[in-house]
Amino acid sequence: MKLVSSEDEISSLCSRWREKGLKIGFVPTMGALHAGHLKLVEAALEDSNRVVVSIFVNPTQFGVNEDLSRYPRDIRRDSALLENLGVSAVFAPDIETVYPRGFSSEIRVKGLTDGLCGTYRPGHFHGVATVCAVLFGIVRPDIAVFGRKDAQQLAVVKRMTSDLRLGVRILTVPIVREKDGLAMSSRNAYLSQEERKQAAAISRGLFAAVEACRGGQRDCSALRDVFREEVEGEPLLSVQYIVTVDPNTMKKVEKVEKEVLLAVAVFAGKTRLIDNVLIEPEV
Amino acid sequence: MKLVSSEDEISSLCSRWREKGLKIGFVPTMGALHAGHLKLVEAALEDSNRVVVSIFVNPTQFGVNEDLSRYPRDIRRDSALLENLGVSAVFAPDIETVYPRGFSSEIRVKGLTDGLCGTYRPGHFHGVATVCAVLFGIVRPDIAVFGRKDAQQLAVVKRMTSDLRLGVRILTVPIVREKDGLAMSSRNAYLSQEERKQAAAISRGLFAAVEACRGGQRDCSALRDVFREEVEGEPLLSVQYIVTVDPNTMKKVEKVEKEVLLAVAVFAGKTRLIDNVLIEPEV
Repeated sequence: MKLVSSEDEISSLCSRWREKGLKIGFVPTMGALHAGHLKLVEAALEDSNRVVVSIFVNPTQFGVNEDLSRYPRDIRRDSALLENLGVSAVFAPDIETVYPRGFSSEIRVKGLTDGLCGTYRPGHFHGVATVCAVLFGIVRPDIAVFGRKDAQQLAVVKRMTSDLRLGVRILTVPIVREKDGLAMSSRNAYLSQEERKQAAAISRGLFAAVEACRGGQRDCSALRDVFREEVEGEPLLSVQYIVTVDPNTMKKVEKVEKEVLLAVAVFAGKTRLIDNVLIEPEV
Repeated sequence: MKLVSSEDEISSLCSRWREKGLKIGFVPTMGALHAGHLKLVEAALEDSNRVVVSIFVNPTQFGVNEDLSRYPRDIRRDSALLENLGVSAVFAPDIETVYPRGFSSEIRVKGLTDGLCGTYRPGHFHGVATVCAVLFGIVRPDIAVFGRKDAQQLAVVKRMTSDLRLGVRILTVPIVREKDGLAMSSRNAYLSQEERKQAAAISRGLFAAVEACRGGQRDCSALRDVFREEVEGEPLLSVQYIVTVDPNTMKKVEKVEKEVLLAVAVFAGKTRLIDNVLIEPEV
């Protein structure tokens, strides 16, 4: 496996693969890899002949009061994990490589980025969309793999990739969960023991809403209440948002008539966690 | 020459050329072609094996009170001119092809789009940057050719193409002028006979500023005054802006120490005309 920090080097490596007719899969990450990331990589390995994983803690998607400086970093451990899986190259550029002097462009995906996390993290999705376009431009993969935990990010990246005809197919992978149901996240490392224990209520609440729908409840407001009740039982948790939206447009939905995304952001102490489920009307 | 309106058709045509190792040149236009456009096409033909010209009056780069509806359109005449030159394909999509249902992305090139035309045409350059990225994504040319008359547009497109690693090299072509010096523009068709006559003062003013610099004047404020005096002699002309800026960053400059762009927008009656010259310090 190659560990590459130079743009020219990764570009020409990928060009050579393309010229040989090899299919390139790409998994953009911020490192601090967990089992969820590894599932993305496995999906890429299954689909493509060569897999590139980027590790780049992108400053433009962090707000001023967010956790950029303390975001967990361990490139050695990450590289070892990726090498074991059979990844061909890790691209770990520094900030000046991704954003050279004079960099001025920003991609906004209007509408999709207004609600949910966009309300509380202004500019976050502009940062995500822009860095994805840049990384896609450098690597020029055939496919890129994203997890469904960041449901709004996924919708934004899909829309942007299609709008700007970047020529990259987006594959998605289901949320990977801990045994008690907590969605895998690099930010879980911030949780105290007690916060970690209570955080299990987030997925319990989501699954309870799915069950309520199976039981006949089609009213989204009632489903959101099912979630809220579960989480409000835990004193260290506080809900930032609970929404029911169309998974592609992120527009609010009040009845389960087709697939609905129930997406939430919950603070466990000072740590902000997100999670979601897709709720489908029984057929 | 092929006249294509479908995205799939132009994409697969260009893919076939690429697979054969042919170099693709691209000239994006809004039609109403004049001798300036034809110079762009000639530059593309000289550089590349196959040349695609797009004709698309892009609504997102027009302001609400601008001339979108009356912008001149003559696809037959344009096509005939391009076929004569040896263009391989004209891509003339409709609005829904370029911006399919749900299209939500917008590219902003910060800083570069604030001054000059950006001040008076808010959103204009977001529209230009976005449509160029979309068209580049559809055609995937090796090179794209732009004229220097739209100096700010050129800076924006260069920056965006480089920032987002679109893999397209930008070629530029000097301003083509009428015999009396007026820069070629599709909007010259709007001018009355008297406006047309007086409009020659715009280029006279620019050339006078270049002469003044050759004569030793390095103070940009004085050079702008040289231009202003020339234009103020014509009663049907009124200056919207006169700026001296760095041609790449569009940042204001007050001394001619390296290449300076003197860029102007002038109303001739109700028609807004732009023009510019590069002023270089004598070596």
